[in-house]
Amino acid sequence: MKIVIIGGVAAGAKAAAKAKRILPDAEIDIYTEDTHVSYSACGIPYYVEGNFDDYRTLLVRSPEEFRAGGINVHLLHKVTKIIPVSKQVLVHDIEANISFLVEYDKLIIATGASPIIPPIKNNCFKNIFSVRTINDAINIKKRLPDCKRAVIIGGGYIGIEMLEALVRNNIHTTLIERGSHIMPVLDEDMSVLVEEHLDSINAGRFTLITDQAVTEFCGDEDGVHTVETSNGDVYEADMVIICAGVKPNVQLAVDAGIKLGITGAIKVNKQMETSESDIYACGDCCEETQLISQTPVWMPLGSNANKEGRCAAINACGGFNEFHGVLSSAVTRCLNLTIAMTGLTERVAEKLGYSVAVAKVTKHDKVGYMPDANDITIKLIADKKTGKLLGGQAMGVGDSDKRINTLTTALLGGLTVDEFARNDLTYAPPFSTTIDPLLDAAQILIAQVDSK
Amino acid sequence: MKIVIIGGVAAGAKAAAKAKRILPDAEIDIYTEDTHVSYSACGIPYYVEGNFDDYRTLLVRSPEEFRAGGINVHLLHKVTKIIPVSKQVLVHDIEANISFLVEYDKLIIATGASPIIPPIKNNCFKNIFSVRTINDAINIKKRLPDCKRAVIIGGGYIGIEMLEALVRNNIHTTLIERGSHIMPVLDEDMSVLVEEHLDSINAGRFTLITDQAVTEFCGDEDGVHTVETSNGDVYEADMVIICAGVKPNVQLAVDAGIKLGITGAIKVNKQMETSESDIYACGDCCEETQLISQTPVWMPLGSNANKEGRCAAINACGGFNEFHGVLSSAVTRCLNLTIAMTGLTERVAEKLGYSVAVAKVTKHDKVGYMPDANDITIKLIADKKTGKLLGGQAMGVGDSDKRINTLTTALLGGLTVDEFARNDLTYAPPFSTTIDPLLDAAQILIAQVDSK
Repeated sequence: MKIVIIGGVAAGAKAAAKAKRILPDAEIDIYTEDTHVSYSACGIPYYVEGNFDDYRTLLVRSPEEFRAGGINVHLLHKVTKIIPVSKQVLVHDIEANISFLVEYDKLIIATGASPIIPPIKNNCFKNIFSVRTINDAINIKKRLPDCKRAVIIGGGYIGIEMLEALVRNNIHTTLIERGSHIMPVLDEDMSVLVEEHLDSINAGRFTLITDQAVTEFCGDEDGVHTVETSNGDVYEADMVIICAGVKPNVQLAVDAGIKLGITGAIKVNKQMETSESDIYACGDCCEETQLISQTPVWMPLGSNANKEGRCAAINACGGFNEFHGVLSSAVTRCLNLTIAMTGLTERVAEKLGYSVAVAKVTKHDKVGYMPDANDITIKLIADKKTGKLLGGQAMGVGDSDKRINTLTTALLGGLTVDEFARNDLTYAPPFSTTIDPLLDAAQILIAQVDSK
Repeated sequence: MKIVIIGGVAAGAKAAAKAKRILPDAEIDIYTEDTHVSYSACGIPYYVEGNFDDYRTLLVRSPEEFRAGGINVHLLHKVTKIIPVSKQVLVHDIEANISFLVEYDKLIIATGASPIIPPIKNNCFKNIFSVRTINDAINIKKRLPDCKRAVIIGGGYIGIEMLEALVRNNIHTTLIERGSHIMPVLDEDMSVLVEEHLDSINAGRFTLITDQAVTEFCGDEDGVHTVETSNGDVYEADMVIICAGVKPNVQLAVDAGIKLGITGAIKVNKQMETSESDIYACGDCCEETQLISQTPVWMPLGSNANKEGRCAAINACGGFNEFHGVLSSAVTRCLNLTIAMTGLTERVAEKLGYSVAVAKVTKHDKVGYMPDANDITIKLIADKKTGKLLGGQAMGVGDSDKRINTLTTALLGGLTVDEFARNDLTYAPPFSTTIDPLLDAAQILIAQVDSK
């Protein structure tokens, strides 16, 4: 059995390791144009921040470890063509500058995603970075000592995580978001709360700009010095970090006739099979099913990549495993603020045609007399007709992320808000209030739904 | 409408407040032999520990606030008899030393629970305390400056919370547990882990003794000085805290012919109605239904008391509300260790006749490179035949309590381990590992159950 895996960051690395455990005698080859495999891209902001000093901490498993385990890792080897009819891939060895054909019995596409680079004039200075690869991490980290002011383009997850990282390095940071709010994945009312909180703890350390697109970089041989926005404002920057989102790497699949889904990522079934036989896809290059709406979504997250890589490997090895889909759960931190969400937002639920009931509460995360009690705001969303929970968002200095996991599990179980309100959540003063904020929100929500 | 409530700590206070909101014109009277109402008994260890200095912080609502809201609070008024046939209670005014009859339309019994005082010789010294009332809290706190060594009797929730409180006051504390392990509510393997962890951080600050009962106190007019145990060992103590469990206060109900359940607490239906019409019970004096086993249990916790008080009030006021039962969820902290549980333990599940499948993992609570990553141990329990989740326990320095809430919600939804393993839990390095420890445990558990 010969398994070829294209890409080796999260899904690819996981698939390789799992396949080797299932079929120790299989020949498993990872091809990647990258100089690293098996790393925690999600950890880059925390490396930049200074939580640890050695970038190698981000490496989950080195090429040597893979090789010692009987998995062949080919760095700087770019797959340039998939030929399903002959079950081959064309590989270009970047260093040797030669190409060769490799045969496979099963092919796993784990090509990941790439940063979106917005159309900005003079987009080629050496101090403009994305946040995706180990080399990005190393390059940003190297630049920090010379950096007093930075601009981040984009206010999504990675943007606000990098804001934290730079601010903690005492770099005055201007975050510029093209839309009207940062964290646009949230409902607008929650994004506003995030902005208000960040403003309240700002203390001159950073600037949040919304409703402006960056149009031009100006600089010299040392790099960018200023950033100009659509309304003519100019911001100084010794470094620019582009966090304007990512797009799935699908060209290789498209060229091979593999079907994409409506999200633009590779379409797969529950067994991670693509439209071509013996070819699987997993990780950031493929789309998922949203379990509540049962619609295709694209959720390029490390947690999904790991599960999908595992699933693809089991099936590629002749076993049976299904990845059912995602609940669109996510969490992030910016300075002392945690932001988490799961399921459908109010906005998305309305777009999908639901009649939506909403409850929002702001409460202590634990009993008020505990010294580390802090506020959290929880927003719950339900189907007004059936009472079925559709999603939720939480933000605050207090403990909100695991409360979203509690809600995620309710979504998984298809619970109504009435059923959820019966939940017996743990209580002790250091951990919760006697009636957990989630249950407070649920009680309010019950009054908003038709079926009681 | 005249509503009489006996007891006003958690359930009684909640019932009064809720009833007044529903029926603003109702006459609502709380009678209690206590000198305080509406307080957080669960917060006493944190007051003793020194998280706040004023015991009044523990008071949720003062008698004056109740009275301003139109609720009559009668402190030091002990109800000595319930007369269901004439819908009256006999009240003894302790200060005035007179008794009088009070009529009710609806009666809510919220008499709570009392500490169990084990049969120990010379059990009357003034420096022997329970942990139940505001006066207990005040008396323990006053004694702290004169206390160098203390003995805690009982290693359950309150025992280990008081251990933390005393150790943080630099009092060398000996905790003596009669059974073979502290936290006997857990499965033995988890209790052992708790003991091992506490031993590892002990640093001479405390001593854990198991398999010994305290038999005798010795002292003089200043109070206890030594504590003797069943095997003849003697421990010095400037203070003794008895945390040997609680028993429901049911005598008043029994005398009135109100039925108890098999747990010894008052039997109620989902509307919190007792066996006598127009008489409700709620809080620590009544039993609950365990939602998984559908058997009666007694879970005297503040969270249950609040929900039951609310439910009793709604029904007493002519509305309709049901309290379905508990999942036996609980959490506690001892020094840097969090311990949480929900559902059935392996031991209880076996006793109930389940064929039990178990998985236990010890993992980081977040990605290992984050500076505050810590281990947690999670034990999951499922029905081997159906794969249905039955319960779980967690312990560790890491973030484990909210993970138990995630599991609680799975129990509420009646999920199998296979369904639970599909959960889309939030992931980012400061909060979790890419595959959450809960899902790691679930994957292991899947292999243990028959139905896959």
